[in-house]
Amino acid sequence: MNFHRLPSRMQAVQAPIIPIVGELIRQHPGTISLGQGVVNYPPPQSAIDQITQFLSNPNNHKYQAVEGIPALKDAIADKLRTENNIDLQNREIVVTAGSNMAFLNVVLAITDPGDEIILQTPFYFNHEMAIEIASCRAVLVPTDENYQIQSDLIRAAITDRTRAIVTISPNNPTGAVYSESALREVNQLCRDSNCFHITDEAYEYFTYGVDHFSAASIADSANHTISIFSLSKAYGFASWRIGYMVIPAFLLESVQKIQDTNVICSSVISQFAAVGALEAGRSYCEEKLKAIAQVREIVLSELETIQHLCTVPQADGAFYFLLKVHTEMDTMELVKKLIQDHRVAVLPGFTFGLENGCYLRVGYGALEKETAIEGIQRLVTGLKTIVETR
Amino acid sequence: MNFHRLPSRMQAVQAPIIPIVGELIRQHPGTISLGQGVVNYPPPQSAIDQITQFLSNPNNHKYQAVEGIPALKDAIADKLRTENNIDLQNREIVVTAGSNMAFLNVVLAITDPGDEIILQTPFYFNHEMAIEIASCRAVLVPTDENYQIQSDLIRAAITDRTRAIVTISPNNPTGAVYSESALREVNQLCRDSNCFHITDEAYEYFTYGVDHFSAASIADSANHTISIFSLSKAYGFASWRIGYMVIPAFLLESVQKIQDTNVICSSVISQFAAVGALEAGRSYCEEKLKAIAQVREIVLSELETIQHLCTVPQADGAFYFLLKVHTEMDTMELVKKLIQDHRVAVLPGFTFGLENGCYLRVGYGALEKETAIEGIQRLVTGLKTIVETR
Repeated sequence: MNFHRLPSRMQAVQAPIIPIVGELIRQHPGTISLGQGVVNYPPPQSAIDQITQFLSNPNNHKYQAVEGIPALKDAIADKLRTENNIDLQNREIVVTAGSNMAFLNVVLAITDPGDEIILQTPFYFNHEMAIEIASCRAVLVPTDENYQIQSDLIRAAITDRTRAIVTISPNNPTGAVYSESALREVNQLCRDSNCFHITDEAYEYFTYGVDHFSAASIADSANHTISIFSLSKAYGFASWRIGYMVIPAFLLESVQKIQDTNVICSSVISQFAAVGALEAGRSYCEEKLKAIAQVREIVLSELETIQHLCTVPQADGAFYFLLKVHTEMDTMELVKKLIQDHRVAVLPGFTFGLENGCYLRVGYGALEKETAIEGIQRLVTGLKTIVETR
Repeated sequence: MNFHRLPSRMQAVQAPIIPIVGELIRQHPGTISLGQGVVNYPPPQSAIDQITQFLSNPNNHKYQAVEGIPALKDAIADKLRTENNIDLQNREIVVTAGSNMAFLNVVLAITDPGDEIILQTPFYFNHEMAIEIASCRAVLVPTDENYQIQSDLIRAAITDRTRAIVTISPNNPTGAVYSESALREVNQLCRDSNCFHITDEAYEYFTYGVDHFSAASIADSANHTISIFSLSKAYGFASWRIGYMVIPAFLLESVQKIQDTNVICSSVISQFAAVGALEAGRSYCEEKLKAIAQVREIVLSELETIQHLCTVPQADGAFYFLLKVHTEMDTMELVKKLIQDHRVAVLPGFTFGLENGCYLRVGYGALEKETAIEGIQRLVTGLKTIVETR
């Protein structure tokens, strides 16, 4: 054995793109990043206030329950019932250190090596990576020209090794929001095929003129639906690492085993702060969303000026647009040129599984209005200069 | 497929024992737990003071570097050089949300399904669980009657699928401290066999009259040595979830991919606090260790009174004794009786891979002196009553 030979498990896993683009940004100071999947606001004061509560009891420095502290689980349960319309009978809540951890955990919990999990392309890169890390196979089903689910193609992709179908709505990286009927159809497909419906709802509050639908609100969905949520976006809480999932009760033991072996419990000071964040609740995010919606309108109207250079499919959610650029150019070459020559960073589509064609993800959640305007103008100018002149 | 059929991956993973014993304790109020692997003191004030620093910059609420914030990595690097005598050339430091996460990460990073990792029995249960979760095989090599490494048996257990040999010193669950020469022998064995030496040093500060040795201080060990550390025990920092590892530089990309897919980065407020903890440094723990050493002496002298009932192998480290009880009794039955009838909790040996014979892990780090005396007296009385009268 050669030490430098990496096992095939890891060879199959793509390198995360964020640090790669991050390094390019560092090399070109002044670059405005439209790459990051974060919001531009901090957590509510009620989250910070909980730190005092945490520090008041020395026992809080010791390990706490694997599935989360009771106060946080209770607050989450209330939220799931009232906002998501989820009946928690035969379900369990598990707090994780972010929603990526929730996804990796359930993939490990429901699979053996060689099993298959269906993702929609473009996919969220960490989902595909988790499936490879679990030595399973990501079966990729393309969405349509508006990045919407194609359930006929999903049905055709199901085999006897399919363990789950994954949907993300509002979607990262496309911003697409799936309709209630589309999600019901997938959920029924999972029930009929005896596989799980994993629904990632990290961006549930980020919709513009449409409604978010939680598949776990469907009657009798408890045994085959796994719902994943995050505080990172809604509460400006990314670095605190708190997400959670709602799982069928019979999966709890497996999920606990993995969590115990992985993180034991999520950082307890972060869990206390999360209780405070949920006290502020959805209205905290809704207030901030007004500014993000304004930025979104600016981005949209700027992109309209280069319709001849790129297609911008409808995106009613999250804080992303996934542009299809009309060029034969290599995507990473374009990303590099945009940073080097125009000081604006976006993410390349291949990282989301789009190998054919030139796609760019534009994220607009992290910027103040003025910076966003400057950033999108640089992108428009950059695309005009680079793509038009070739 | 039946939803309630669990994949074989998870069937192979043992249920964590701590919640099971925890539930028994809850059912029997007043029980003193000698089960927990935690210390009885909180983090240093310098750790708490860092919270202000964290809150002073809104950017700290966003995701930070996968491998840890620079200030923490720098503090760790200083500590590794001066205390552990580790040359960091060709090595990388990665901060994890506890040392369990470090172990799971490297197991995933260096294996394919079916690969083998050698553990010494009794093993630390989460190590065995991590190996099963990665669909690998834990190859179990027994230690001797003093829970010391048997390198001839390790050598005989190596196959062409062996990817790593794991040592834990000071040891959980036995309290044994491995000598420098024993650790050098294992490290050389790994080099000769082209496999990794994974050395878990979470209890490095907890030694009583002997010295801790870090295998990564061995010359030319950088490419095959993975060292895992934790702030949980030394700094009373368990719930903050901060550990770290030192890995060969060529493993960094794989480890980053897994970390990015799992936790992205460890809770950043916890990382700031960890910087403060390392400022207090080893002397903080050494001060507290005096009290733990006193409790250890009390536990030892109490156990001497029942030498006819149990053997207590030498244990110069951590805060555990692993008793071999001279009885044919089922271990879990004994554990239950001790809680039910004597209100004292210990962990059963089978959770550490000891299937033959009745073993009990006694942890004495979590208790104040008075409670410890009461707890160990209950254990002695319990063993006398239950074992002697059978």
